Amino acid sequence: MLTVKTPQQATQIINENISSYEKICEIVSINNLLGRVLFCDICSNEFVPDFDRSTVDGYAVVASSTFGCSDSIPAILDYKGEVEMGQEPDFEIDKSSCAYVPTGGQIPKGANAMVMIEYAEDFGDNTRAMLKPSAPSQHIIFRGDDVKKDQIILTAGTILQTKDIGTLSALGISEVMVCKRPRVGVISTGDELIDITQPLKKSQIRDVNTYVLCSAIESAGCEPVKIGIVKDDFKALQTAVQKSLKDCDVLLVSGGSSVGVKDATAKVFESLGEVYFHGIAIKPGKPTIFGKIGEKSVFGLPGHPLASYFIFDLFIRPMLYKIQNAKEFRNSTVAKLTAPIPSNHGRQECVPVRIFEQNEEFLAEPIFNKSGLISVLAKAQGYIVIDRDCEGLSKDDLVTVTLL
Amino acid sequence: MLTVKTPQQATQIINENISSYEKICEIVSINNLLGRVLFCDICSNEFVPDFDRSTVDGYAVVASSTFGCSDSIPAILDYKGEVEMGQEPDFEIDKSSCAYVPTGGQIPKGANAMVMIEYAEDFGDNTRAMLKPSAPSQHIIFRGDDVKKDQIILTAGTILQTKDIGTLSALGISEVMVCKRPRVGVISTGDELIDITQPLKKSQIRDVNTYVLCSAIESAGCEPVKIGIVKDDFKALQTAVQKSLKDCDVLLVSGGSSVGVKDATAKVFESLGEVYFHGIAIKPGKPTIFGKIGEKSVFGLPGHPLASYFIFDLFIRPMLYKIQNAKEFRNSTVAKLTAPIPSNHGRQECVPVRIFEQNEEFLAEPIFNKSGLISVLAKAQGYIVIDRDCEGLSKDDLVTVTLL
Repeated sequence: MLTVKTPQQATQIINENISSYEKICEIVSINNLLGRVLFCDICSNEFVPDFDRSTVDGYAVVASSTFGCSDSIPAILDYKGEVEMGQEPDFEIDKSSCAYVPTGGQIPKGANAMVMIEYAEDFGDNTRAMLKPSAPSQHIIFRGDDVKKDQIILTAGTILQTKDIGTLSALGISEVMVCKRPRVGVISTGDELIDITQPLKKSQIRDVNTYVLCSAIESAGCEPVKIGIVKDDFKALQTAVQKSLKDCDVLLVSGGSSVGVKDATAKVFESLGEVYFHGIAIKPGKPTIFGKIGEKSVFGLPGHPLASYFIFDLFIRPMLYKIQNAKEFRNSTVAKLTAPIPSNHGRQECVPVRIFEQNEEFLAEPIFNKSGLISVLAKAQGYIVIDRDCEGLSKDDLVTVTLL
Repeated sequence: MLTVKTPQQATQIINENISSYEKICEIVSINNLLGRVLFCDICSNEFVPDFDRSTVDGYAVVASSTFGCSDSIPAILDYKGEVEMGQEPDFEIDKSSCAYVPTGGQIPKGANAMVMIEYAEDFGDNTRAMLKPSAPSQHIIFRGDDVKKDQIILTAGTILQTKDIGTLSALGISEVMVCKRPRVGVISTGDELIDITQPLKKSQIRDVNTYVLCSAIESAGCEPVKIGIVKDDFKALQTAVQKSLKDCDVLLVSGGSSVGVKDATAKVFESLGEVYFHGIAIKPGKPTIFGKIGEKSVFGLPGHPLASYFIFDLFIRPMLYKIQNAKEFRNSTVAKLTAPIPSNHGRQECVPVRIFEQNEEFLAEPIFNKSGLISVLAKAQGYIVIDRDCEGLSKDDLVTVTLL
């Protein structure tokens, strides 16, 4: 029998004992940064922009020279010339003058506002008429408005997205120190398993977990190492685990983690290192194992693909981000249940849901299933976690849905 | 002056005129499918599982033989042997017998329920005592419970995620026909621009858009083609556009799309093909151009990185999914505004927001900014779209946030 931990206890034990994965950095080009984890803070060593720039096409003026002007009483200003894009203007503006500046062009010294080209007129005599007043600083981005010098602009642990690529390129940073991706090994055990590329005989089952876990590992910013199927046999599994750990930072073994006659995972972990827990009070996913061999974390996951996926998402994904020092942002949404979910008898439960929008609110429809059905995931957009102390949920209850 | 379209009109014009991108498929290994778009429906040509299997370690029985049994009055059944994982049992079960079946093992003919090993006892005389009754079908997954034969299990246009990898591998599908990734060219124009790898002179600006757009294109499942910076000059841009279109399915030109003296993008598009609109009533992002050259869609985007990013997200990302026939699922959440947002004077407006959780609800804090500030994106987790007819939003209003 398993002595199970609560999910909270399990998380705590994992956090207290995860291997001190040697955080190694590597330098990666800005073209390949999506999903990588920033290794240290990015501090700007310049102002962005580095000069005052116009946000419109129009005329740079001293604001006060336009106060009170209108269509009927324009402010007539001497025309000093045009600022070229990417060029520093070689003239100054005073209360009697103006200069044309295109969007993004540098504001000449002396000027402190822009009048849009729509509100100005060229009288052809080297003057320009301003038909609308402009307030000081109007239509100008000042030096450092975007980023100040010595400002920390991205912090270590940020999982880099498209939006961050913008910040980095604005600072002229084309190569970035990111955390080296941890290598995570995946073993499937079970005498009934065959690889998906092999023909299936009656009573055999395809090895789904290897492919799901490798894909999930990749989506958590790590490098999956596919080891393949190992027979549910102590010696064979022991050899495979020892060999894999030479090449991996973390190892996942799916299947063989319950208490059947032949399930060898826990025994193998114990023979080579330490097992911290065997069993979590969660449905699905109870027969989960966490241990350490040498300095490396090892996990035993349920053989059922759905259970194995949930355990990955709830315990292993956060752990993989943690050893990379990454700040995970879980996409989740609040939705209204379309059907009641009965009590779960003292075990935390994960219920997959379909999400759809109706009358500007999100609805979550629970997908009831027998443990282990992988097709459930194909239909689901997310899942809800029902606490062990919760005595079930009612229709129309608002729930937080973790998006897949 | 621009004659602007509403965002709805713009979307409609784009949808009616997007190039008939020749949907070409390619075959990709299951190891490289994340984010790819399924080319045709996936239909199962077998049952999953293909046999009745146990979901527990225990004894296969005829359910009715256990009815009424208990700790004190166990049901004594002849022991027929053990089912090996991955092997077809060569015996049958009747009302007087049972057999050991491990989790995932095949249920022998005749049996219709499982009794968990915890509720059985071995009396050592080749019989087993069942201490708890089991109902018909208890702890069994039947043939086809997960997937039926000839069932469509994933539909064309699905953007493949980890969860779908599970479904494919359960069906033994290791290679999949996906849509060939459209090649999307990116040109930045502007005499003030320099590449981010170059030293910056006063009055120059780094080319942020190339990197942001290439990254965004990648995240939309397409292949970015970085063309680089082209001077804001009709001839130079015309040559670059013509050359790029030979190698790309779609072309994005950022900068040079407003109506400044030198802005050449619209003129170049007109000289080579047709411009369908020039200007969208949206803030930021007004000077957006959509046209077609030959059979290929071309877009002019604002030079300001923030505006350019929003235009990509609102108009170009959906278009890129559409030409791949992909069903996009936008992650969004409902949140409560922490501050009022004033009226936007007849233009649809995109307001970036920070999201945080407080007392089990999501709060959205608007990030007010001057147009074009890229650092705003670094702080934002999403954005809200305020309709042109909306006269502003109040504190505590519930808004839908599109997550970045």
